[in-house]
Amino acid sequence: MKLSEIANRLGCRLDGDGNVEIVRVASLESAQPGDLSFLTSAKYRRLLAGTRASAVIVGSSEPAAVVPSAILRSDHPYVTLALALRLLAPSAAPPRGVDRLSAIAADAAIGPDASVGPFVAVGAGASIGARAVIYPSVVIGPRARIGDDCVLHAGVSVRDGVVIGHRVTILDGAVIGSDGFGFARQPDGSHLKIPQHADVIIEDDVEIGANTTIDRPAVGETRVAKGTKVDNLVHIAHGVTVGRRVLLAAQVGIAGSTTVEDDVMMGGQVGVGGHLTVAKGTVAGGQSGITRSTDAGSYISGYPAIDNLTWRKAQVIFRRLPELKNRIEELEQRIDELEEKLTACSQPDRS
Amino acid sequence: MKLSEIANRLGCRLDGDGNVEIVRVASLESAQPGDLSFLTSAKYRRLLAGTRASAVIVGSSEPAAVVPSAILRSDHPYVTLALALRLLAPSAAPPRGVDRLSAIAADAAIGPDASVGPFVAVGAGASIGARAVIYPSVVIGPRARIGDDCVLHAGVSVRDGVVIGHRVTILDGAVIGSDGFGFARQPDGSHLKIPQHADVIIEDDVEIGANTTIDRPAVGETRVAKGTKVDNLVHIAHGVTVGRRVLLAAQVGIAGSTTVEDDVMMGGQVGVGGHLTVAKGTVAGGQSGITRSTDAGSYISGYPAIDNLTWRKAQVIFRRLPELKNRIEELEQRIDELEEKLTACSQPDRS
Amino acid sequence: MKLSEIANRLGCRLDGDGNVEIVRVASLESAQPGDLSFLTSAKYRRLLAGTRASAVIVGSSEPAAVVPSAILRSDHPYVTLALALRLLAPSAAPPRGVDRLSAIAADAAIGPDASVGPFVAVGAGASIGARAVIYPSVVIGPRARIGDDCVLHAGVSVRDGVVIGHRVTILDGAVIGSDGFGFARQPDGSHLKIPQHADVIIEDDVEIGANTTIDRPAVGETRVAKGTKVDNLVHIAHGVTVGRRVLLAAQVGIAGSTTVEDDVMMGGQVGVGGHLTVAKGTVAGGQSGITRSTDAGSYISGYPAIDNLTWRKAQVIFRRLPELKNRIEELEQRIDELEEKLTACSQPDRS
Repeated sequence: MKLSEIANRLGCRLDGDGNVEIVRVASLESAQPGDLSFLTSAKYRRLLAGTRASAVIVGSSEPAAVVPSAILRSDHPYVTLALALRLLAPSAAPPRGVDRLSAIAADAAIGPDASVGPFVAVGAGASIGARAVIYPSVVIGPRARIGDDCVLHAGVSVRDGVVIGHRVTILDGAVIGSDGFGFARQPDGSHLKIPQHADVIIEDDVEIGANTTIDRPAVGETRVAKGTKVDNLVHIAHGVTVGRRVLLAAQVGIAGSTTVEDDVMMGGQVGVGGHLTVAKGTVAGGQSGITRSTDAGSYISGYPAIDNLTWRKAQVIFRRLPELKNRIEELEQRIDELEEKLTACSQPDRS
Repeated sequence: MKLSEIANRLGCRLDGDGNVEIVRVASLESAQPGDLSFLTSAKYRRLLAGTRASAVIVGSSEPAAVVPSAILRSDHPYVTLALALRLLAPSAAPPRGVDRLSAIAADAAIGPDASVGPFVAVGAGASIGARAVIYPSVVIGPRARIGDDCVLHAGVSVRDGVVIGHRVTILDGAVIGSDGFGFARQPDGSHLKIPQHADVIIEDDVEIGANTTIDRPAVGETRVAKGTKVDNLVHIAHGVTVGRRVLLAAQVGIAGSTTVEDDVMMGGQVGVGGHLTVAKGTVAGGQSGITRSTDAGSYISGYPAIDNLTWRKAQVIFRRLPELKNRIEELEQRIDELEEKLTACSQPDRS
Repeated sequence: MKLSEIANRLGCRLDGDGNVEIVRVASLESAQPGDLSFLTSAKYRRLLAGTRASAVIVGSSEPAAVVPSAILRSDHPYVTLALALRLLAPSAAPPRGVDRLSAIAADAAIGPDASVGPFVAVGAGASIGARAVIYPSVVIGPRARIGDDCVLHAGVSVRDGVVIGHRVTILDGAVIGSDGFGFARQPDGSHLKIPQHADVIIEDDVEIGANTTIDRPAVGETRVAKGTKVDNLVHIAHGVTVGRRVLLAAQVGIAGSTTVEDDVMMGGQVGVGGHLTVAKGTVAGGQSGITRSTDAGSYISGYPAIDNLTWRKAQVIFRRLPELKNRIEELEQRIDELEEKLTACSQPDRS
């Protein structure tokens, strides 16, 4: 595609030769002639001068002098990068229609132009929306509902009755609607399973990562709201509500009945206790452990998670604890000596 | 089902109108007329007065005054809740029999009234017990043995020779009997795989969560004992023994050859080192890291995990480390001054 | 197999009766007559005298006196153990050929003597090498390339275009080439997916654990280099490079664009931030959180990960923080008193 056409479609200002044919998006370092590159982080600005790319996406105010190629200017270069990748990405959609090696219940509804691969099982009363793509070995339980334009990658399991909105992407091996971890301890110490049959709702425009698990509760619902993105190997327990536009990085775990409000961001391996509220816009650093409800907009770190700045100052001193302990011991010794001397000093008759 | 019949079947004392027809179990907040609700945690007592439920399960000594509905009294309300859910849960068992789109080895044994879904593979010499339910895309290796009344959800992999007891539930995507992570470093620095072909035994009444992995060892066995419940995304390494009635929350990881004794409880994301013994009844807080064997009945937290009370007191002070450091510096300054003055004081001839 | 033949094949020195027939490898404690056992850790030396094994693999300099059986001496007893297990392991390879219940694209290439189980889907243009073993329910995307002698266990998903070398083992449920977690925040706060279509390369002799996920990037590549071993439930994000002979224990998570150099070892549940370099030979203790690039050969622990020795000394004092705080308070009180006295002392006219 000609660079001028890309600029046009992405709504960018073009500086330079628009006739060059662009075949690929590549990083500043690895780009070759014919590639479109990008500067989306100041950290990589030093690579601009040496890039071999034919064009580079930059911010609106980036000085032109340092870029040795054509330039696409954008107020939101990262968004422009995403759009450029969409424009140039290979279309890899599998063929429409239902593979003959699938097992679709007689009363299941498959939307128009949907693609259902081999070894897909769809249970009684389930429905799959228009243009949905269901990769091989996906299992969709009875009465589950999958919206339009969803993509379910290989091996995904959607349990019975789960409701999934439109434009939801679920990566390979994810499990939606598995039984919550709920047991009642009986007088003899054994654990009686509390049946977990209530609802799981995944709203529109959600993405769920590979091998992530989202459990269903005994009563009420588990919900992931519109536009939220969940990375790989995340655990969302029964009865959890995750708000809109939340980002959960890989291996996050959220215990039962907790509410994660809109626009929260959690780094990798964060753990959240049960029955808490992680308030709107909270940002939690990687590996932090959230043990109590947070205030809106807070930035927290550590275990138990506390204000990030407090934590940062404290952890710097943590590594100096042996030195502090020595200083305390030294102080104790000096004060012992002082007290002794002062006793001598204040009792001159003794000396 | 009539409330009076529910009371009768659950062995509860009924206060109020037993003729009301109950259709569902719901939380105090969301319950509607026709619903049975429950109070199993004092935290939610304030919701009792406002509930619209037709009946509420409460403890034996709960005052009647505050409940505006019929009451089911129980000495163990949480157990009663579990039983009520079982009574009212929709029966969702798939049809009996072996799906024609499965691949069952000629000499595999399928028990009476078992259900084997489409795309299930069962290897040579394997056996599946009576009334077992095997959901689609489950793979059962050669010579594996699955007991009676087991439920294996979609995509579970049970490797060759693994032995699974009766009434075991394995949630979607779990892997039982994968190769332990064992390699011998060779003189050239490369890693030689130590073949992992020994036994994995899952005893009766165990539940294993979605996408959990349980490895097999090179020699000896990996064992999960009777009545233990394992949540999602848990890793149990080769040669680990997990005792009876243990609860492992999501994302726990247990390294090789460790023994977890009966009645242990681990919070989410706990990590346990290899070749340790986590003694009977140990409780480990979420995200704790167990680096040495524990005493029976201990309650531990932190990394490395230490006595919970010690840890709690220490972590409160952790965040005040900058202040403590400042106080030490101030002390040092004051003592410098004191020493100076005292030198002056004790050498009056100089002044 | 006769012990003398085992000794011969493994290149070990044999002390004792070589005529005994060996049927199995077992631990010192559980071994029975007919078993070959091993001493690969000094920790278990006390068990030598009591073993019932017919032969024991020991180090070259182990004193013979304490072993009541035949002895196989080796300079590398752990490597010898691995080789002995290979020699005595049951061969469990599934039959060669392509199962009739698979779905192989017309133009996919299946190498000679490969085994492809039931319910395996292989996409257009994909290739599978000679003698590869593909277990049931594996999904291989279009244009993916699997090398010779690979083993892909049940339920593995290899996405389109992924390149996998020779002698690679991928355990059950692992996902190779899932979409990286990359989104551009739009002016309205919503997240626009950055398409992730670039390369994933798994080099020769790699092992990847059960339910592990390895993501593909938007541009560039994700690479796991020759001889590296990855345990279960590990997350390797988009654009990560993992060097040669690296060992990643279970539940490790590595964020995007990070480089892990050769010979690194990470304990279980370690987390690594994005855009970092974990330098050659770094060893990271379990649960540590790596927040900045490391020096080659460093041994680090804690969160944030610091030098292991510094961390060990500091964490010992962490638990004594309440005591240290008390000692500071006591010092403050004593110095208050001293200052008071000294004021008195230095103003003798007042007294």
